[in-house]
Amino acid sequence: MSNDMDSTQIDCGLAIHGGVGTLARGALTPEVEAAYRESLEEALEAGGSALRGGGTSLDAVVAAVRVLEDSPLYNAGRGSNYDERGVITMDASIMSSHLRDAGAVAGVAGVRSPIELARRVMEDTEHAFLIGEGAEALARSLALDFEDAEFFHTDRRWAELQAAKARGAGRPNVLGALEPEDRSGTVGAVAIDSAGALAAATSTGGMANKTWGRVGDSPVIGAGTYASHLCAVSCTGWGEYFIRHAAAYDVHARMEYAGCDLGDAVKAVIWDSLHAAAPRSGGLVAIDGAGRVELCFSTPGMYRGWLDLSGRSHVAIF
Amino acid sequence: MSNDMDSTQIDCGLAIHGGVGTLARGALTPEVEAAYRESLEEALEAGGSALRGGGTSLDAVVAAVRVLEDSPLYNAGRGSNYDERGVITMDASIMSSHLRDAGAVAGVAGVRSPIELARRVMEDTEHAFLIGEGAEALARSLALDFEDAEFFHTDRRWAELQAAKARGAGRPNVLGALEPEDRSGTVGAVAIDSAGALAAATSTGGMANKTWGRVGDSPVIGAGTYASHLCAVSCTGWGEYFIRHAAAYDVHARMEYAGCDLGDAVKAVIWDSLHAAAPRSGGLVAIDGAGRVELCFSTPGMYRGWLDLSGRSHVAIF
Repeated sequence: MSNDMDSTQIDCGLAIHGGVGTLARGALTPEVEAAYRESLEEALEAGGSALRGGGTSLDAVVAAVRVLEDSPLYNAGRGSNYDERGVITMDASIMSSHLRDAGAVAGVAGVRSPIELARRVMEDTEHAFLIGEGAEALARSLALDFEDAEFFHTDRRWAELQAAKARGAGRPNVLGALEPEDRSGTVGAVAIDSAGALAAATSTGGMANKTWGRVGDSPVIGAGTYASHLCAVSCTGWGEYFIRHAAAYDVHARMEYAGCDLGDAVKAVIWDSLHAAAPRSGGLVAIDGAGRVELCFSTPGMYRGWLDLSGRSHVAIF
Repeated sequence: MSNDMDSTQIDCGLAIHGGVGTLARGALTPEVEAAYRESLEEALEAGGSALRGGGTSLDAVVAAVRVLEDSPLYNAGRGSNYDERGVITMDASIMSSHLRDAGAVAGVAGVRSPIELARRVMEDTEHAFLIGEGAEALARSLALDFEDAEFFHTDRRWAELQAAKARGAGRPNVLGALEPEDRSGTVGAVAIDSAGALAAATSTGGMANKTWGRVGDSPVIGAGTYASHLCAVSCTGWGEYFIRHAAAYDVHARMEYAGCDLGDAVKAVIWDSLHAAAPRSGGLVAIDGAGRVELCFSTPGMYRGWLDLSGRSHVAIF
């Protein structure tokens, strides 16, 4: 069922994704492809550098995701999608296998790094999930970086909003008029550190032209992100289906209760559950307690990368 | 480990809870206890009436939850807890075993019935989760009932806010200063209809004195609410832990992958996972595909009720 690249098994401590909302092969010029590959390499280097420097898996996934948030190429942080009002609101979540601690934010505007804010929710509050202006107020009280609308703006996402509105014109629901690439932009990372702690992080700007207030799976612990002693998982795809199938936790559950290994659990979630419910609905990256990585998707492509045992980086798109 | 009432097994189509944030036995006067029992009976009658009238399990759980939302006794809808700003914001979610469809709202103010809004998110949009003003905008566009602050206000919840603030004064984190009853108020229902469809619904005002923007498990599909062909689950308790353990979905997962029956799955989630991570962290009501009900909690009490095979109602608190 899966293609050559979607279940690569290697031993390493870090894997990342930049979403399944890839450009069509034909639309991806050599220059644009090179830019994507370069930023994926940069994210791997940031995460790998954190791990090599003695950082935790939490440090590694935040470092990797921050690079992708700051890149205008990905639908997270800078370069996020616009909602139906032409406003950018972002969602993110993070989780550690240590005590299964977790933090998440949804519907935040102006915060430069939503994943950093999610980590602060986890570490600096007794809460797991803050939304909207309340989450922004926490970011301000912690003196996190805010940026103006111009920082987050990209001409490409603005054009995608206009195109999504045009396709949806006159239709009773907007989502039906979306292309897969409109709803599948997300970035994420999973890692294991030398102490054996696993972590997962996910960050997104949500769907293009999304309904005001719409939240997908990215900030939902158990849906877009999960981490336990068995695995760490970060998802990307059609968020509503990942929520309804508790996709990220389901990888853990299949390992814990059904005795699956990581590869079997990941394939079952992406193909047997999600693809069966909604064809080509997305993908995920995951890592197990032995540092084995899975990168699996039912879409034509997923921006992704991983470090192998020797620390060498690998990136792929289709 | 569990007390007499926490794993009652009966055959019926409906079970409800009014939260584990029960008053202490000593503080519950006969008059107050009678009022709680009366409103639980009323909720069972509303849900049971829907089922007897040919309604779906979704109709039944919404009818039951609306009674509890409208009652000032419970921390949901009217009578909700105040956040740290003295504002009431509410969360709710609903799910059906049919296609595992789901809807949720978080951080909504002024909406009389958050569970009704969650159902409309599920049925009238292609989304699963809407938050804040965007969710309120949907409610207005659907002409759902809004009420002013006076409708939602109760002197009791206002006094609880002041008490929570007093206990939390000068402490770096507020949550540590909370009593279990401050963080465990939630209402919910599970049902199965004559067609065999299962549904679950959960609604809450959140913790007393909660941080601006804080969201617990109630609106998180997989944490506070889940429904599949195997079971429907509605949780109440310390939301952060229910999120981190994907509590509602975990009941389903233990049944599907580990072959547990509903009783074993529910006990494992409440005691082995949640109580082990955070003692006395909460409870849940659940129903399986044969209409068997479980009502389980690690707290001193949980407002709860169920219908038996003959349609007779039962309510209990401790």
